[in-house]
Amino acid sequence: MNQKLGRASMGLKEPVYIWSSASIVGTKEGQGPLGLLFDRVGEEDMFGCKTWEEAESTLQKEAVGMALDKAGLQPEEISFIFAGDLLGQSMATSFGISSFGVPLLGVYGACSTCGESLALGAMAIAGGFADRVVCVTSSHFASAEKEFRFPLEYGNQRPLSASWTVTGSGAFVLGDASFGRTGKARARITGMTVGKIVDYGLKDSMNMGACMAPAAAASLAQHFADFAVGPEEYDKIITGDLGKVGQRVLTDLLGREGYDISGRHMDCGIEIFDGESQDTHAGGSGCGCSAVTLSAYILKQLEEGNWKKVLFMPTGALLSKTSFNEGMSVPGIAHGVVMESCN
Amino acid sequence: MNQKLGRASMGLKEPVYIWSSASIVGTKEGQGPLGLLFDRVGEEDMFGCKTWEEAESTLQKEAVGMALDKAGLQPEEISFIFAGDLLGQSMATSFGISSFGVPLLGVYGACSTCGESLALGAMAIAGGFADRVVCVTSSHFASAEKEFRFPLEYGNQRPLSASWTVTGSGAFVLGDASFGRTGKARARITGMTVGKIVDYGLKDSMNMGACMAPAAAASLAQHFADFAVGPEEYDKIITGDLGKVGQRVLTDLLGREGYDISGRHMDCGIEIFDGESQDTHAGGSGCGCSAVTLSAYILKQLEEGNWKKVLFMPTGALLSKTSFNEGMSVPGIAHGVVMESCN
Repeated sequence: MNQKLGRASMGLKEPVYIWSSASIVGTKEGQGPLGLLFDRVGEEDMFGCKTWEEAESTLQKEAVGMALDKAGLQPEEISFIFAGDLLGQSMATSFGISSFGVPLLGVYGACSTCGESLALGAMAIAGGFADRVVCVTSSHFASAEKEFRFPLEYGNQRPLSASWTVTGSGAFVLGDASFGRTGKARARITGMTVGKIVDYGLKDSMNMGACMAPAAAASLAQHFADFAVGPEEYDKIITGDLGKVGQRVLTDLLGREGYDISGRHMDCGIEIFDGESQDTHAGGSGCGCSAVTLSAYILKQLEEGNWKKVLFMPTGALLSKTSFNEGMSVPGIAHGVVMESCN
Repeated sequence: MNQKLGRASMGLKEPVYIWSSASIVGTKEGQGPLGLLFDRVGEEDMFGCKTWEEAESTLQKEAVGMALDKAGLQPEEISFIFAGDLLGQSMATSFGISSFGVPLLGVYGACSTCGESLALGAMAIAGGFADRVVCVTSSHFASAEKEFRFPLEYGNQRPLSASWTVTGSGAFVLGDASFGRTGKARARITGMTVGKIVDYGLKDSMNMGACMAPAAAASLAQHFADFAVGPEEYDKIITGDLGKVGQRVLTDLLGREGYDISGRHMDCGIEIFDGESQDTHAGGSGCGCSAVTLSAYILKQLEEGNWKKVLFMPTGALLSKTSFNEGMSVPGIAHGVVMESCN
């Protein structure tokens, strides 16, 4: 039986399998430490389009197309797409995936959206409602700066706590154990923890790591309680885009709860750029950050058996330019997905 | 067994019950034909807040609070909230429901979000992942005009095809048959159809009914095929906010597919205002329109046994001000939920 676990978690009767995935990134991500692992790196960040938003839509379209190709599937064989992005009214999604003609369930959790889409996708399959689903999220540095901060032409200075929105999209084909057409799945999903909104009242959109860390700490503590495990259960505990500042806050907050994750914590935002040479300050961020790192790096480690079990927990800052302009805080949210190696 | 039905639908092993619901609306909605049916009508449209966005957040908070009260539940007894709104980055939701401390799954489907939240909420319960969930959506005339169109102070003229965004929020407590603490459920959910994005290339944000009607037609035709039924299966086929223009387009498009819904079609946007006396032109719209009409009017009819079975299908226009400014089209989407009387 599928079951609710504790306050906020879901246990699966049968694992859900990540049968294929794909990643596409921009030039800066291609030059970063994970550059060689991505499936496709753009030659320029407009990806042949006329607007930044259209470029981001193209990222989603390419990522989904590649993931379907790798799984040997046609769009007609996909039950539902769970998709989202950071732009107002999820514009990158609306124009990115419409051509596939697949029924769409749009999701929004800021940069945690990748985790939310995988949690809901796994729920749809494990619940018996879908044969195969695709989960896809994206972000684009330039469309995000336009949506949330300053015009690029303005050339504003960025504090060291600021993160750099990743240009990229990651897509994932999920199915049950019987999917098997392509041989072996990349990994399997065995549980999920849904985050609640946590708001410590911070208002600095140039320090989103600190805004999101309390939500990550709350979701992690909830996860440990719901599954009756400790950090040692996992080879890696992977947040989405806390960056260097958020990582310290998270470690401190969890330490106070009695959990020591320092030896096994990894943050996609810290991994994706070389902060020193790439001038990205606290790290990468965005819906695309955790998605492309999961596809290119994390799933590779699980596939090769280097890691046996990880907790993937993208983090989101629930910020809009309107809320910022009205002096509101930046609440956070974080959704966790347990992934295990099929080796 | 829960099952995938046809291309885009979900069949439930056991029905999911709508145990309680609540609606709160603004002054104009309170003066409309359904005015006496809403649980709460604001004395003024700021609802005691300093900004329109904060007012919309208050609507969600009030609606959820009332729905929980009616069900005799505390927030701690709710597994998950499925919530969304029309604002950029779902701002009304982020600040509206955080105080409940319930794990949140944010959804976005423009004005179809009410249908999406109910479909996913029913999936979570029928799949065994949750005991009870809350689904809530909202819209506010003034925050929507600010987000999508012109400053209110500008006093722009509105064409007759334009719709009037409903100020309101509807919340629903869903549970399985064993919930029963309050006696009798308002209605039961027995199936869902997930819509795909349909884009006929229309670009007129002042005629969203026409933009959304093709998506409604596609989802309805898909629903009839997936469940192997015709329009006569339902006492009412209820769209969200097509308005008078969209209703004509829908009837025409479905007529070409061989489906005659003219005798049983109802549109929440047409019901909620008296277009003549209230100067609302094509009808009401927004995430709140279908939600408050469902709570106050549709569920009442099912509860009283006046209708035995309806197909509730909110419709969404996937529009943003950025996409509009960049000359993009307004794609549509529509998600359907089958609701049956418990009488």
